[in-house]
Amino acid sequence: MDFLEGIAVKETLELPQLQEPDRVGGKVRVNGAVHVIRDMGNIAFLILRKRDGLLQCVYEEGVTAFDLSRLKEAATVEVCGTLLRNEKAPGGIEVHLTDITILSQPMDPMPIPVAKWKMSASLETRLSLRPICLRNIRERAKFKVQEGVVRGFREFLQEQGFTEIHSPKLASKGAEGGANIFKLDYFHRPAVLAQSPQFYKQMMVGVFDRVFEVGPVFRAEKHNTKRHLNEYTSLDFEMGYIDSFRDVMAMETGALKRILQILERDYAKELDLLQAKLPSADRIPVVRFDEAKRLASAKYNRPIRNPYDLEPEEETLIGRYFKEEYGADFVFVTHYPSKKRPFYAMDDPEDPRFTLSFDCLLGGMEITTGGQRIHDPQMLVDKIAKRGMTTEGMQSYLSAFSHGMPPHGGLGIGLERLTMKILNLDDIRETTLFPRDMSRLDP
Amino acid sequence: MDFLEGIAVKETLELPQLQEPDRVGGKVRVNGAVHVIRDMGNIAFLILRKRDGLLQCVYEEGVTAFDLSRLKEAATVEVCGTLLRNEKAPGGIEVHLTDITILSQPMDPMPIPVAKWKMSASLETRLSLRPICLRNIRERAKFKVQEGVVRGFREFLQEQGFTEIHSPKLASKGAEGGANIFKLDYFHRPAVLAQSPQFYKQMMVGVFDRVFEVGPVFRAEKHNTKRHLNEYTSLDFEMGYIDSFRDVMAMETGALKRILQILERDYAKELDLLQAKLPSADRIPVVRFDEAKRLASAKYNRPIRNPYDLEPEEETLIGRYFKEEYGADFVFVTHYPSKKRPFYAMDDPEDPRFTLSFDCLLGGMEITTGGQRIHDPQMLVDKIAKRGMTTEGMQSYLSAFSHGMPPHGGLGIGLERLTMKILNLDDIRETTLFPRDMSRLDP
Repeated sequence: MDFLEGIAVKETLELPQLQEPDRVGGKVRVNGAVHVIRDMGNIAFLILRKRDGLLQCVYEEGVTAFDLSRLKEAATVEVCGTLLRNEKAPGGIEVHLTDITILSQPMDPMPIPVAKWKMSASLETRLSLRPICLRNIRERAKFKVQEGVVRGFREFLQEQGFTEIHSPKLASKGAEGGANIFKLDYFHRPAVLAQSPQFYKQMMVGVFDRVFEVGPVFRAEKHNTKRHLNEYTSLDFEMGYIDSFRDVMAMETGALKRILQILERDYAKELDLLQAKLPSADRIPVVRFDEAKRLASAKYNRPIRNPYDLEPEEETLIGRYFKEEYGADFVFVTHYPSKKRPFYAMDDPEDPRFTLSFDCLLGGMEITTGGQRIHDPQMLVDKIAKRGMTTEGMQSYLSAFSHGMPPHGGLGIGLERLTMKILNLDDIRETTLFPRDMSRLDP
Repeated sequence: MDFLEGIAVKETLELPQLQEPDRVGGKVRVNGAVHVIRDMGNIAFLILRKRDGLLQCVYEEGVTAFDLSRLKEAATVEVCGTLLRNEKAPGGIEVHLTDITILSQPMDPMPIPVAKWKMSASLETRLSLRPICLRNIRERAKFKVQEGVVRGFREFLQEQGFTEIHSPKLASKGAEGGANIFKLDYFHRPAVLAQSPQFYKQMMVGVFDRVFEVGPVFRAEKHNTKRHLNEYTSLDFEMGYIDSFRDVMAMETGALKRILQILERDYAKELDLLQAKLPSADRIPVVRFDEAKRLASAKYNRPIRNPYDLEPEEETLIGRYFKEEYGADFVFVTHYPSKKRPFYAMDDPEDPRFTLSFDCLLGGMEITTGGQRIHDPQMLVDKIAKRGMTTEGMQSYLSAFSHGMPPHGGLGIGLERLTMKILNLDDIRETTLFPRDMSRLDP
């Protein structure tokens, strides 16, 4: 009988192994995709794209046992040769080839040059050719950074006693209500796609006290802006036994700091490729909604048009204000008007026109919405009634409260938007592998 | 201006802090949910449910400044008292109460006793009352174990150079094709819910070489069994530059070993609560599909009815065979018939009736399907044509191949099913927070 006991050591090496000092001068075997071929006559440079970066290989006629004319860009190969130092090559090393074996050949010429430093094509074109364009090392670096964001979020919350959950995306009713819900037929019953894990994460506070989830959410909003998607990845958490919604903001501050630490430590190469300078979350100003509006209005001479709403331009000015006055990248804007928040938001007992809630802005754009939730069952039912909403489909949600729920709060962070703002990009589609917007359902 | 710099230290303590040796004899402040009250007259035991377990508190009339009649089960409280050792109490400690503060009161009596060791109610009842029933510490322990499974999967793959991705769940076409797809209207265009991240993870092999994703998948299958769900969490990975599909199985073996190590190390308390004995993935037998059928048929005297299919009962017998003959919990069954696999499966060049694919069984049930994929663009197009399928909606997928893709393979593991089999439970709904099946869309 044949058995497997785990992964076997491969003869082919990855870039970190090639960087080990005693490899230089030795024979190495490497695989990768042919990123670009620079043919200089008797000699040619073959740049291999590997998962950790690029590797320069040197082809020499008469030395490399291979007919170079057979090799196409975008082929995948396994090569063999001598590893040498070359300060001009990526990573300071190169392989002088003795052998090339073709693993796969492309069928068509590349529709767009991915080996260029910067893709000059429009975002529209890059998205249409997404699986190809992401092979550009700067394009893919954005998603390595995004991976780091998720790692930091999870790592920090895990340490803080949060349990990771997986809530259903198909349900009989949406958490936020309203019209912006995708509907579908579920075995002859009406169903919706989750706009957020809100109801589930709140119910799970009664079970695990602290929970988080990283998963897709769906919004049928007819927006067509650079900061909205119809499907995005939400970083959600919810925590019990809070003293105030300040505990939620403090937890987010901790998570943001960890994310930025991880990016600095493990994703320096990608940040460097993207020429991105990380923001700081070390000291985040906290300002009331009305006060933030006043400050921005006064400094930038922009009249307040609606005291109960925050326009995107006002967000930008608030971000600018706190950058200029305090050097702050992030800002917590608190006490949003009750009208603008969902029914489950806890109203401020001192002034119920406002809520014990907040947004977190980064670079003048909202990346998080959160706050304290109503935990008292009667207060919850009363607020639903006051809004003229029905409790239909909310029985389980409400039952969690009528059977005891601690004071709690939480938040949702848009992963793509946070990544966009960390990298200082101007369209959320740049940081979404396969964006879904009003016109895009494919690829 | 007010600033936040991170989380503040709380006066209230969690169970791991209460276990610190120098706490005994000291004053402590703790919050939690009133799991159960055992009133003995002048004295009462108040069991608090906290996220890490239970804590016994001792109420004494005249000592505890509180009217016990005001306290209801399922209330949440903050208590104050002296920490003492008591070997009979959970965790060997208890708090002798001086004060109780009520944080929240339930409105209704509990519909089901959650403080019992084992919930005796039917699965149907427990699912209908899910948010309440999960407060039972054995019920919730299943989902802590599930968390550990995901942690192990991610941790191992990250170390092996995999990039975590987030692929869209809304698309214009399903990856596997067929009728079992949930359909919906996406801004007046027909859309489907992803049955798997198959197309996306394959395309991303061309970008990151190795990728993984943990996310929901949706299957509109009209199954109604103990092992099927219509929405579940899929642990997916895909890896490039494989020598054979054996590399994929070896990677899974490594991931399973890591998962089991993490469960043993960090989830011993939960496994103990559930009286679960972990399986071993140290040495997983690998057997051909046809051979596995023959072995099970011969040993258990069950005629082979269809040489190209594996019935659930045959899976059970194959599992039993390898347990009895080799003491193995997991089995890799390889070379599934081509007819039973999707078009992208790589046929065995030695006998194209079979594929270079596998299932992994645990305790006689399939927990994984995987294999080598076709990477040659012409072979892919030919197989699609041979099956009479259309390439409509597959242009981006196919373009990744026509522009060069390395040999690759991957797999998908059903998280709920793996958790169910690790815990030796008999219904997949037991390990799904909020199951979605043909009759269940709520809660």
